Amino acid sequence: MEPRRRPPRPAKRNWRDGRPEREPRDVAILYGWHTVKAALENPARRVHKLWATENGARRLAESGLSITPEIVRPGFIDARLGPDAVHQGLLAETDPLSGPDIDELPDDCIVMVLDQITDPHNVGAILRSAAAFGVRAIVTTARHSPEATGVLAKSASGALEYVGMVTVQNLARCMEELRSRGFQLIGLDSEGTIDLAALTVRAPLALVLGAEGKGLRQLTRATCDQVARIELPGAIVSLNVSNAAAVALYVATRSIGVK
Amino acid sequence: MEPRRRPPRPAKRNWRDGRPEREPRDVAILYGWHTVKAALENPARRVHKLWATENGARRLAESGLSITPEIVRPGFIDARLGPDAVHQGLLAETDPLSGPDIDELPDDCIVMVLDQITDPHNVGAILRSAAAFGVRAIVTTARHSPEATGVLAKSASGALEYVGMVTVQNLARCMEELRSRGFQLIGLDSEGTIDLAALTVRAPLALVLGAEGKGLRQLTRATCDQVARIELPGAIVSLNVSNAAAVALYVATRSIGVK
Repeated sequence: MEPRRRPPRPAKRNWRDGRPEREPRDVAILYGWHTVKAALENPARRVHKLWATENGARRLAESGLSITPEIVRPGFIDARLGPDAVHQGLLAETDPLSGPDIDELPDDCIVMVLDQITDPHNVGAILRSAAAFGVRAIVTTARHSPEATGVLAKSASGALEYVGMVTVQNLARCMEELRSRGFQLIGLDSEGTIDLAALTVRAPLALVLGAEGKGLRQLTRATCDQVARIELPGAIVSLNVSNAAAVALYVATRSIGVK
Repeated sequence: MEPRRRPPRPAKRNWRDGRPEREPRDVAILYGWHTVKAALENPARRVHKLWATENGARRLAESGLSITPEIVRPGFIDARLGPDAVHQGLLAETDPLSGPDIDELPDDCIVMVLDQITDPHNVGAILRSAAAFGVRAIVTTARHSPEATGVLAKSASGALEYVGMVTVQNLARCMEELRSRGFQLIGLDSEGTIDLAALTVRAPLALVLGAEGKGLRQLTRATCDQVARIELPGAIVSLNVSNAAAVALYVATRSIGVK
């Protein structure tokens, strides 16, 4: 099977030198074993181009993926991604996936709302935990959020194929939409007044997380039904945001599951 | 108050050019607000040198820390740390802290054992969660582990001052020492046969985590009393290692606290 290809579309031209120009959100760059493998297995993901080292290609073939990549030297991928990217001999250029509409979300699901969390490693790790706990979608702001490509996709370790990314201009308005759809909106904050584990949690549920340091913005916080904390007995009172997200998902899924 | 200084000691000389040479583990480089503030507040941490921008110095003074840093331009700290370090105008050069002896650990504590987890962001985030959940010490291998400095210290967000780092040559031997001290040794693995939440957990407890991808080495696994998994209902069956550590600590501390 050849990599799935999208139909050619007219390329934009750079106004200065007339060379083809690509819109930033037009392409998702995926690398690393789990990330590329999950993308190749996802029928909804359109792959334009797949490069692999000899080792990467062998691993793909051994796992039953009958896609023929263009074989390149490791240095080719290094040169594209920089020396710090752990690409494991696999690089794909794909279309970004389009996320679900809020209206289409099922009535028993969990979504996460990220309020301007900028670090792509953290957002990627949150996506991975989201996929592990069966979260349906992640809502982020169009501004001050990393794109679903590169480092984020690598940290997500394939989770982009399972969790829909919904990008909105106005987070509070989207939260009101979720509320009108019946979602319970629970914000997380290290100084929240209620222990998350003591809350009555039900689906559909939206867990709302703020950026490290800044936390939830005022309007985001005010739009939540409750703002809860994770009970921490130790000397440090806040977790890394992806760690907090994982613990919150554990508590919430257990709580919903028990009912 | 001046930064605490260590007494001068004879400098090693580089065998090639005779210039003073520093052993890699001789100095801990700390930067960022939480990391530097926690170090300055820790009487056991010997600070040789403290640089701050005007803003960094003002923030230190406002928080009641009466330490006079050397005022520098942001570019001075950028040049030392590289452009990606979020240093918030604070940089300190300190002695590394010495960790506790296994013999000195109290009978009701939790420790974590990290089996060759190499990524300093992950180890730093684990340290931060460890401090948040009241973990007493983290055991790492002398080889294949990042040092308690730089990126690890920044990700730990001050946790190095609260959680002792114990570096050992032989992890399995150290685990046997812990066992003879009465510790329950629980390994974590996404394919563990028991749900961690279903286990009877008691203090003193050692939670043993392996590196992403590789997991627990064979001897490490064999030395555990049990190997447990975190129950994940979703499409992805393993969490980022720091996320897994946070969830495991949540489950274990709740479980011990309940008894």
